[in-house]
Amino acid sequence: MAKLRSIAQKDCKVRSPFWDHYIQLIGKKVLPYQWKLLNDEIPDAEPSGCIRNFRIAAGLEEGDFYGAVFQDSDLAKWLDAVGHYLAMHDDAKLEALADSAIELVEKAQEDDGYLDTYFIIARKDQRWKNLRDCHELYCAGHFIEAGVSYYTATGKRRLLDVVIRLANLICSVFGKGEGQIPGYPGHEEIEYALLRLGEVTGNRKYIDEARYFIMERGVSDYFGKEAQDPGYIERFSEIGRLPRTYSQSHEPVLEQDEAVGHAVRAMYLYTAMAHYAREENDSALMEASNRLWNDTVYRKMYVTGGIGSTAVGESFSSAYDLPNDSAYCETCASIGLMRFSEEMFLSSPHSMYGDVIERALYNTVLAGIAFDGEHFFYVNPLESVPEKVKGNPIFSHVRTQRPRWFGVACCPPNIARTLPDITTYAYAKDGKSFYVQLYVAGSVRVSDTLSLQLDTDYPATGNIKIRLEGNEPGFVLHVRIPSWCETRSVTLNGKTLEPGMERGYLVFSDLHDGDVLNINSEMDPFFVYPNPGITSDAGMVAVQKGPFVYCAEEADNGRTLSSLSVSPSSRFSSTHIDGIPEMYPCLSVEGEKEVWKGPDLYSREPGKEENLELKLVPYCAWNNRGEGEMRVWLRRNR
Amino acid sequence: MAKLRSIAQKDCKVRSPFWDHYIQLIGKKVLPYQWKLLNDEIPDAEPSGCIRNFRIAAGLEEGDFYGAVFQDSDLAKWLDAVGHYLAMHDDAKLEALADSAIELVEKAQEDDGYLDTYFIIARKDQRWKNLRDCHELYCAGHFIEAGVSYYTATGKRRLLDVVIRLANLICSVFGKGEGQIPGYPGHEEIEYALLRLGEVTGNRKYIDEARYFIMERGVSDYFGKEAQDPGYIERFSEIGRLPRTYSQSHEPVLEQDEAVGHAVRAMYLYTAMAHYAREENDSALMEASNRLWNDTVYRKMYVTGGIGSTAVGESFSSAYDLPNDSAYCETCASIGLMRFSEEMFLSSPHSMYGDVIERALYNTVLAGIAFDGEHFFYVNPLESVPEKVKGNPIFSHVRTQRPRWFGVACCPPNIARTLPDITTYAYAKDGKSFYVQLYVAGSVRVSDTLSLQLDTDYPATGNIKIRLEGNEPGFVLHVRIPSWCETRSVTLNGKTLEPGMERGYLVFSDLHDGDVLNINSEMDPFFVYPNPGITSDAGMVAVQKGPFVYCAEEADNGRTLSSLSVSPSSRFSSTHIDGIPEMYPCLSVEGEKEVWKGPDLYSREPGKEENLELKLVPYCAWNNRGEGEMRVWLRRNR
Repeated sequence: MAKLRSIAQKDCKVRSPFWDHYIQLIGKKVLPYQWKLLNDEIPDAEPSGCIRNFRIAAGLEEGDFYGAVFQDSDLAKWLDAVGHYLAMHDDAKLEALADSAIELVEKAQEDDGYLDTYFIIARKDQRWKNLRDCHELYCAGHFIEAGVSYYTATGKRRLLDVVIRLANLICSVFGKGEGQIPGYPGHEEIEYALLRLGEVTGNRKYIDEARYFIMERGVSDYFGKEAQDPGYIERFSEIGRLPRTYSQSHEPVLEQDEAVGHAVRAMYLYTAMAHYAREENDSALMEASNRLWNDTVYRKMYVTGGIGSTAVGESFSSAYDLPNDSAYCETCASIGLMRFSEEMFLSSPHSMYGDVIERALYNTVLAGIAFDGEHFFYVNPLESVPEKVKGNPIFSHVRTQRPRWFGVACCPPNIARTLPDITTYAYAKDGKSFYVQLYVAGSVRVSDTLSLQLDTDYPATGNIKIRLEGNEPGFVLHVRIPSWCETRSVTLNGKTLEPGMERGYLVFSDLHDGDVLNINSEMDPFFVYPNPGITSDAGMVAVQKGPFVYCAEEADNGRTLSSLSVSPSSRFSSTHIDGIPEMYPCLSVEGEKEVWKGPDLYSREPGKEENLELKLVPYCAWNNRGEGEMRVWLRRNR
Repeated sequence: MAKLRSIAQKDCKVRSPFWDHYIQLIGKKVLPYQWKLLNDEIPDAEPSGCIRNFRIAAGLEEGDFYGAVFQDSDLAKWLDAVGHYLAMHDDAKLEALADSAIELVEKAQEDDGYLDTYFIIARKDQRWKNLRDCHELYCAGHFIEAGVSYYTATGKRRLLDVVIRLANLICSVFGKGEGQIPGYPGHEEIEYALLRLGEVTGNRKYIDEARYFIMERGVSDYFGKEAQDPGYIERFSEIGRLPRTYSQSHEPVLEQDEAVGHAVRAMYLYTAMAHYAREENDSALMEASNRLWNDTVYRKMYVTGGIGSTAVGESFSSAYDLPNDSAYCETCASIGLMRFSEEMFLSSPHSMYGDVIERALYNTVLAGIAFDGEHFFYVNPLESVPEKVKGNPIFSHVRTQRPRWFGVACCPPNIARTLPDITTYAYAKDGKSFYVQLYVAGSVRVSDTLSLQLDTDYPATGNIKIRLEGNEPGFVLHVRIPSWCETRSVTLNGKTLEPGMERGYLVFSDLHDGDVLNINSEMDPFFVYPNPGITSDAGMVAVQKGPFVYCAEEADNGRTLSSLSVSPSSRFSSTHIDGIPEMYPCLSVEGEKEVWKGPDLYSREPGKEENLELKLVPYCAWNNRGEGEMRVWLRRNR
């Protein structure tokens, strides 16, 4: 087991048109917009009530709680995202808004450290009575993460101190000791948050508490027991009818070997498991994490890096069951897959983790946000026919256009905290070894004496130029080669090199100040074939170029995309499509369209095949030109 | 508009190994077994309570009602099926059981004619308070049909008189007159039943009442209004959350142009509409029926003649939305499609109606009953992967094996009354014109002076021999040629003939006593191509031979049927498969299997294709050899 460490955001600079675009969208549009939403200042949006709840809890206003039982977490995630954004860019206005919110949170916090306005306002004596559904630990975890990230970005301690008090309360309340509650949360999140708090504060008790939550989970049926308590409060959701696998609490984590249940919950648990296992050298827990990552990636992941195949319980289903139209593929779940994969990478560097991170990031995660930064997808299907979606209730979770906001608004802030955090996924180090897992133009401080300048237009091409500034004796550079890359060339200061490859990483030692490495990876479009056991993709192919998976849209190809086909010999060319910015390179490919005659649904004769140039756009760019059909998997002619 | 009439069962004899097999299964196994179930004499089956409810209502026993609000209809359908069986075969034992049940029903009936034990036992003052959900008119309709069919078969009037009293009550209660209830039923059935009662009794008032129910439907939101009544009783189901299209009551029937909602309800309504329209020369209603038949058959029907594409509301969804794995395809709905198509045929003879009747009958309807006559499918998918079915709740309505019986047991008795009734679908006449719509070996009395002897081994071959016994001046014989038939030869008394074809029927006039017609239709297996708008079938083909649609099963082809493919040039041959009786001719076809290497779900390389002889069985014969995968639509290589 290795123990790589991420590079702090403040040690990185991003100078990438691609990522600057997104980071600016987050900072200039998404975060200010979300602030207005939290303050109910957007007239035609669903009310939030979030800030108002804190004002009521702080005694600054009279009123009733409004919103879901986990409404507080919207603010926590916003603060977390602001933290990640401020780590990249100064923004005095945003920082002032955040400081004002933090002051309010501090006022709302109870004296003993408790923080949850749902209970503070109207249910003071019902704390911790329903861990399965009431999301108190979930909200706490998100505030802890926010406290850590805000402090890391700004050096300001106020929110960190709030969450330290909260974490101290949690540590005293939950555990196996006398008078403690031997419970664990219905929605995992506190585990990872406590690990981060432990690392930032240097206080082991938070790490031990995280371990307690991880290891106690599923040992017994705590949720069944708490429901027997006379003080138990009624459930707030349909969760009661779902099996224990929903919350991954059906058996102890060390015995789990299948990714089951609610996909976001699962990812948050597995992320914490892998993180703890690595930092604490727990090999049994690391093995369990590994089994779960393998089951997810090799049996339950969509080609777009989406996970969660059924709307019922927003959950995993069985291996190879990956329906394209009724897919759930929650944006938050793919973010969770990125985080889980990152923890696995830090435990054992291998390019496959970066491949999965890219598959999720460049496809489902980016698909979650519209070009305008004001509309978001919660659910990310791989096939959409609007009439079909509207006509069959098994698609009732699917939207045919990104909505502005929604009742359960976890995905927009999750995107907002992830995209500015790109460098956390891009770089890592382990002693003298430095890893470039993702290609992001900018610079990174390796040590006091060494920085790297990275020049790349990824994902437009697979080329990256890395220049050393300074020296570090014993420095070893590892640069990931994505799995789709078939041909590459490497030069050092203009001279061809054939470096060694270790677990999908090119390895360079003996580098010095001023050295310039050019790693050029060919990025031709190619067909992706599915495991034939994935019934929904039988007889189909997808198209990929670099990390982007492509799709066909009605706007470019007309209706009935299911009538289109391509063959292995089809040739691709680059193309421009009006309405699709150049940062999303579009493709043209030779294909055919089956033209059906007559009213019969079934016939002895196939339709007539007509030649056609299919136009494809990166999946993350779909649905920005109005409602219409979309299709990732295309019929394949052999 | 034409006005053909069915031929009475008593004027037909069946001497067909294929149909005798089924009719015997019904008479010797299914009906006796169902009787035991209704009497709770089967130890490991779900309790029925049906007969006991009648005994309690008749005052012969004390107790509470048991079962669903429509439990009475199980007995009504059993009696209806016994009637249809006795019309073909004497069976004194069955008849005695039926007579005893009828005596019980008569005792349970209230003095004013009311008949519904759910209300008689415990809710006497709640009659008619919730027409949407309480199924009183549905039960009444099934009893009326039973009364008619039992009388027609046996000449015994007791049940007929019971239902006449019931129908008289209904006629007095429901209508637009002073003091009447201006309502209509949530589950259509009474409409068709009243039409049949009117025809058997010669009493027009039942026909007028049927018209009332048909035409009043959807004119206003009756179900919304009845819910405002202080006497309204609570709903018994989730129906309240479904839109009015569920019960086809969203608008008057004359304005309806799409098959919507619960598929069985829809078919029962449309059947009554077409029947009334024809018998009463109502051209507007006939046009509406025609629009609805077209929408069903040309936009919403599976290749197996199944209808109802979504489990939510057991309903139709949008045009071309025909998922194979999550299909509903209720057996009862396909029986309904047969009945509706029959009414359309009688209104306007065309072979397309017989094609649809066969598609439904020889595939989904026969799939509804296992070889052993003791296990039944309610839901009939076109693709089944057991792990997938068990792992994703969107398949929770799908069974991986036919169960013995189920809570809502409408399908077994529906099959039991339909299969002995085969001759009703096979023959019809209009004056001197006589139609052979289906090929069934046996004989049929055309008139006092003419009979036909039919000799055929259909569906094994497409050949039929028809011999005239007797004469009928002006007799014109119409014999349907199924649409799959590409080549045929016709001889009359050994001499080749080229008869005229009218609307898919060969027409023969000038036939005489002793004439022998041989019509031989080639029945080679062929590929069926789907309209490319059916996204679930994109890039696939099905296989058909005669009326049978075929499928691949795991028992013969191993797992991962989604890895199999065929091409248009693949050659077929006949084959025998152990465990599949010869009456279900099996096929072998040249195909390929994609063999996948390695753990990745997605790859730049397809799997390796290996040649394979695929074995196919008729769809109706699937799932008789244990649990395993099944697939109708196979990958097609062009």
